[in-house]
Amino acid sequence: MELPPLSEMRCVVLGGGGFIGTHLCRRLKGQVGSLKAFGRRQSFPDALRDVEWFQGDFNDPSSLAAAIEGCDVVFHLVNATTPSSANVDKVADVRLNVVGSLQLLEVCKAENVKRVVFASSGGTIYGIPDILPTPEDAPCWPLTSYGISKLSIERYLHLYSYLHGIDYRVLRVANPFGPLQVASKNQGVIAAFLRRILADQPVEIWGDGSVARDYLYVNDVVDALILSASHKGEDRIFNIGSGIARTINEVIDSLEKVTGKQCRVIRRDGRMVDVPISVLDVSRARHSLNWQPRTQFEEGLEQTFRWLAKT
Amino acid sequence: MELPPLSEMRCVVLGGGGFIGTHLCRRLKGQVGSLKAFGRRQSFPDALRDVEWFQGDFNDPSSLAAAIEGCDVVFHLVNATTPSSANVDKVADVRLNVVGSLQLLEVCKAENVKRVVFASSGGTIYGIPDILPTPEDAPCWPLTSYGISKLSIERYLHLYSYLHGIDYRVLRVANPFGPLQVASKNQGVIAAFLRRILADQPVEIWGDGSVARDYLYVNDVVDALILSASHKGEDRIFNIGSGIARTINEVIDSLEKVTGKQCRVIRRDGRMVDVPISVLDVSRARHSLNWQPRTQFEEGLEQTFRWLAKT
Repeated sequence: MELPPLSEMRCVVLGGGGFIGTHLCRRLKGQVGSLKAFGRRQSFPDALRDVEWFQGDFNDPSSLAAAIEGCDVVFHLVNATTPSSANVDKVADVRLNVVGSLQLLEVCKAENVKRVVFASSGGTIYGIPDILPTPEDAPCWPLTSYGISKLSIERYLHLYSYLHGIDYRVLRVANPFGPLQVASKNQGVIAAFLRRILADQPVEIWGDGSVARDYLYVNDVVDALILSASHKGEDRIFNIGSGIARTINEVIDSLEKVTGKQCRVIRRDGRMVDVPISVLDVSRARHSLNWQPRTQFEEGLEQTFRWLAKT
Repeated sequence: MELPPLSEMRCVVLGGGGFIGTHLCRRLKGQVGSLKAFGRRQSFPDALRDVEWFQGDFNDPSSLAAAIEGCDVVFHLVNATTPSSANVDKVADVRLNVVGSLQLLEVCKAENVKRVVFASSGGTIYGIPDILPTPEDAPCWPLTSYGISKLSIERYLHLYSYLHGIDYRVLRVANPFGPLQVASKNQGVIAAFLRRILADQPVEIWGDGSVARDYLYVNDVVDALILSASHKGEDRIFNIGSGIARTINEVIDSLEKVTGKQCRVIRRDGRMVDVPISVLDVSRARHSLNWQPRTQFEEGLEQTFRWLAKT
C-alpha cells in the first residue's frame, strides 16, 4: 500500500499523552496532513491543546478504532507496564501489552492502516548481550517480561505484514530522557535523579553505580519516529540510541556539573533485572534511516534541568 | 538444583494423553522413579493403563499444581492450538498457550520443580529461514501465531531460569509422525494421508507438492525428550529433526511404496502459512545431547501403516 508524503499523511499517536508521545505530537503538528492522539490521559494537557484528542483505554478495541479510523500511519507508543513492574505480574503484562497490541493490529487491518511505527525497547530486548554495542541481529533473550512482550509484539507486526500487508517499522529505543519525563513509574533515572538533586534529597542507586546504559535525548527519538513513518528502505528494525555507554556514576557526575549541586548517593543491593551494560549499535539507523543523534548528552541534561527548574 | 539420576527422577508429562505424550509415558514407565501424566483427555487410554493419570485443563493452575506436586522434571507437551488454527484467533492462542505456560512456570516455582523440558516447534519457529538446514541460532520470525507463542514460551523459560533457577531444555521438534497420531486437528500430514489411502480416498495437497518438511519418527522424538531430562551440558535449545527435507510429492511416493496402493491427489491453492521449505540442522543435538535419529523414514512409515491397518 502506497504511503502519502509526510505533508499529506494522516497520523495517530497511541500513547500520545505520555512522555515521548507528547513530544512527537508537538513535532508532527503542522507537518502532517492530519493528527490525532490517543491515550488514557494527558500528562501535559497544555502541550497538546491544538491536537485532536481521543481519550480511551488501549485494551478497548472500540475506542482504539475511533482514534485509528481514516489514518495512514499509527505510532504505537503504549507501555502498560515498566521493565520492573512487568516481572511482578507477567500474566497482566502479556494481557495488557501483547493482547492489546494484537487487538490493535486487528483494528489496523479493519481500518486499512498502511504502516505501524512501534516503539520497542533497546534496553531490555537483548537481555545480557554478547556483543557491545549491540546490533539489531543479536539474539534476543530478555530478562524481564517487559522485553519479552516487546519481542512478541515485533513478531506479530511481522506476521501482520506477511498475512495482511500492513507495513511496519520497529524502533528499539535505548533509555530516553528529556523534558516532560515523569519519574513516577520507577523509570527514567535522569528525571528521577534531577528531581531529587533539585530538592536537595539523596539519590538511591542499585549496586556500585557501574551499571551502564545508553541514554538518548527525546528530540532524537522523535526524529527517528518521524523518519520511520515515511522510510522506504528494506530494513524494518532499528536500534535508536546514542551508541555510548554511560555508567550511573558518570551520569551523577554530569548531573552535578549541570545543576552545580553536589549529589548525595545511597547505595542499595543490585537488582536482578539490571543488565550490567546496555549500549546499542546504531549504524543501521544512520545508514538506512538517515538518522543520527544530534543532541550532546550534557546539552540534553541542561534542557531537562531547565524544564524541571521551571515546573 | 541438583537433578537425581533418571532411575530416581520424579516426572510428570503434561499433555500426556496426546500423540507424543502417550509414547513418552510408555517409555518413561519403569525407567524413572515415579511418573504422572496430565491432560484434558487420553487419546489412547489402554496405552496409559499403568500410568497415574491427572485429568485437568492446562489453563487451570490448581489442577496443574496437583499433578506437578513433588516432581523434579516437568515435560511440557501441551499445544492448545495448531499452526493453522492459531492464526484464526491469535488472542485465544496467546491466552491458551502463553498465559497457560506462564501459570505453569509459577506452579513450577512454587513446587520447586528442577527442570522443565518443553516441546517447541522446529517447523514454525524460524519462519522462512535464510539458512538450510536451519541451526538453532538462526533468526526466529514465525509466520503463524503458533510459532510466536512457542518463541515467547522459550523466552519465559529463560527468564524463570534466570530469576528463579528453574533449569530448562527446549526441543524444537520438526514434523513428528508415527503410531497414535490423530490427524483430526489438521496436523500430521502422514497420518492423514495414510488414513485416506487405506480408505481408498484421494489426498488433498496445497500447492504443487513441492513444499518440503523435515519428518521425524516419534520414537526418535521420545529419545530426545528423555535425554533432555538429565542432560548436563551448557546448551538449552536443540533442533530435533531428521535433517532431511522431503517434499509432499516424495512423501506420497513413499506412502505408495509402503502401502502398495496408488494414491489419487487433489491439488488446492497454496496456503499463506506454508513455509516453502523447512529442514533442521541437528548437529547440536548430535554432539551435545548425544542424540541421533535412529529410524529410517520408510521404516517409520511402515510402523505407522501397520498400526493404522490394525485400528
